Amino acid sequence: MKVIFDTDPGIDDAMALLYLSKLPEIELLGITTVVGNADIATTTRNALFLGEQFGISAPVVQGAGETLDGVVKDEPVIVYGHNGLGDIAIPAVDESGLYPDAASQFIIDSLKAHPGEVTIIAVGRMTNLALALRAAPEVAKLAKQVIIMGGAFGYQGRSGNITPLAEANIHGDPVAADEIFAADWPVVAVGLDVTHDIILDNDYLASLADEAGDNGELLRQMCGHYAKFYREIMGLSGVVGHDLLAVTYALHPEWFEVRRGPVLVIRDGLAAGQTAQMPETRKGGHAAWADRPSQIVCIGVDGPKVLAHYRETVTRG
Amino acid sequence: MKVIFDTDPGIDDAMALLYLSKLPEIELLGITTVVGNADIATTTRNALFLGEQFGISAPVVQGAGETLDGVVKDEPVIVYGHNGLGDIAIPAVDESGLYPDAASQFIIDSLKAHPGEVTIIAVGRMTNLALALRAAPEVAKLAKQVIIMGGAFGYQGRSGNITPLAEANIHGDPVAADEIFAADWPVVAVGLDVTHDIILDNDYLASLADEAGDNGELLRQMCGHYAKFYREIMGLSGVVGHDLLAVTYALHPEWFEVRRGPVLVIRDGLAAGQTAQMPETRKGGHAAWADRPSQIVCIGVDGPKVLAHYRETVTRG
Repeated sequence: MKVIFDTDPGIDDAMALLYLSKLPEIELLGITTVVGNADIATTTRNALFLGEQFGISAPVVQGAGETLDGVVKDEPVIVYGHNGLGDIAIPAVDESGLYPDAASQFIIDSLKAHPGEVTIIAVGRMTNLALALRAAPEVAKLAKQVIIMGGAFGYQGRSGNITPLAEANIHGDPVAADEIFAADWPVVAVGLDVTHDIILDNDYLASLADEAGDNGELLRQMCGHYAKFYREIMGLSGVVGHDLLAVTYALHPEWFEVRRGPVLVIRDGLAAGQTAQMPETRKGGHAAWADRPSQIVCIGVDGPKVLAHYRETVTRG
Repeated sequence: MKVIFDTDPGIDDAMALLYLSKLPEIELLGITTVVGNADIATTTRNALFLGEQFGISAPVVQGAGETLDGVVKDEPVIVYGHNGLGDIAIPAVDESGLYPDAASQFIIDSLKAHPGEVTIIAVGRMTNLALALRAAPEVAKLAKQVIIMGGAFGYQGRSGNITPLAEANIHGDPVAADEIFAADWPVVAVGLDVTHDIILDNDYLASLADEAGDNGELLRQMCGHYAKFYREIMGLSGVVGHDLLAVTYALHPEWFEVRRGPVLVIRDGLAAGQTAQMPETRKGGHAAWADRPSQIVCIGVDGPKVLAHYRETVTRG
């Protein structure tokens, strides 16, 4: 499976990238970066660092530093630390092969080079994807699928994590997200409805760090910061594996329960970043949803299977 | 328990009013009417008709024919028929004692006459309540509680019934609803999250009609129309007891699971009518919710208990 990983590392981004690096089924074409969990220079530097750390040969391609909605958001330092990776020590990285602001072109070129074969896994704001669509709308039909970590559709009473209505990746660029859902490619939304079923508790994290070889200490340090946020702000004893779950979907969609139907994103106002799906089974409907393609929203997941698979995968030698 | 019933009959309004009329615990102070399931002349006429039919001595007071958001909505003829009561035959009613446009003043006067004693059960658009608050904000503190049928908070994956985001009573006047939730009185929202657990199936409805004495034929005819809508549009074999559930809450709050926290309504745009609660247990929060009082949202209900209680009550001699 050919994959482009669009990311803003980000601690759970790093956990997802480690997962990708250990999966022989996946051929990683490139890592594209976007502003989000930190500014674009930082997320790009982090992607380069993580690529080296995890022995990934795929290129890192720098993407958008500004969102399409034009709204500058505070950086989530409380969640990811000042350097995006929980304030672990990060050595200098080699930036010589880096192309700035080229992520959307990289996405276009990759989809054209491998029509029908490329899965985009996007775990940050969807700005790069929307820029690719704006520049070359015809590439939508060339994608195999687009799996995003994003959204909150109200399942299990789960509200947003930025506002009660909005999840961070969608809230971060609701215009881009709305364009993604409207496009003629198959989108799968892995949102808070399911990611909050993936709790890596403190025992699990300790075992993971012990068993993950060279990457164990990195995981321990990053997750220590991340767990502090979840403990103090969310009252959880563990961390939520948001981004890694988008990777799981690519391999094991059968572990998910889904709902199909067109999806729309509220672009501004108090509800900005709200994701709303019109279920395909519903008659009548509403004009604003009517012209959009049916997309997939994950509404349930077999959490224990995901956690076992993640651990088994990232502790491989 | 002193109750004002604010309503737009409406088939399930009629079912709720029958319920109220048979409960010795409840002293009905008045029935206030509002535009919604039909125009204001029709809902008022229907309230007068139902009051006579059910032997209710409380006055009917006409309320708002226009909503505070200034948006005229189509009448839901497909749900309630052309006359609001499933196109049953309605005889001429005596309108001599009727005061037009007086509902908000009636609410103010009643709250002042019985400080701390009056429960408002509002099962239509909240326009009358908001008009009362605008004219006399000090009455909010005099209400015992305000129980509304309205809202869709995403529990059990239930989307809105007008748009994927909005429930009809809130969507009908989102400005009024937003003012209700912001006011300093205790509001309980009985929304789609719980009302869709109250399915009166066809066998239940047939038994109800058989056992309800003089009102049986009325129930049979009204519910026949209502069931047609649910069968053809919603794919349900039965009807949803939306409004009656607000009455049940007044008597048996212990049958409900609730979540507490400030509530906000999106007033316009594609998300107009969306209800959003910031859970009280959540730290941080968001400025738009911060200054509002905590209100109660129902998120679970013991459906079988409600259905048994309704049947037992309305079939009393």
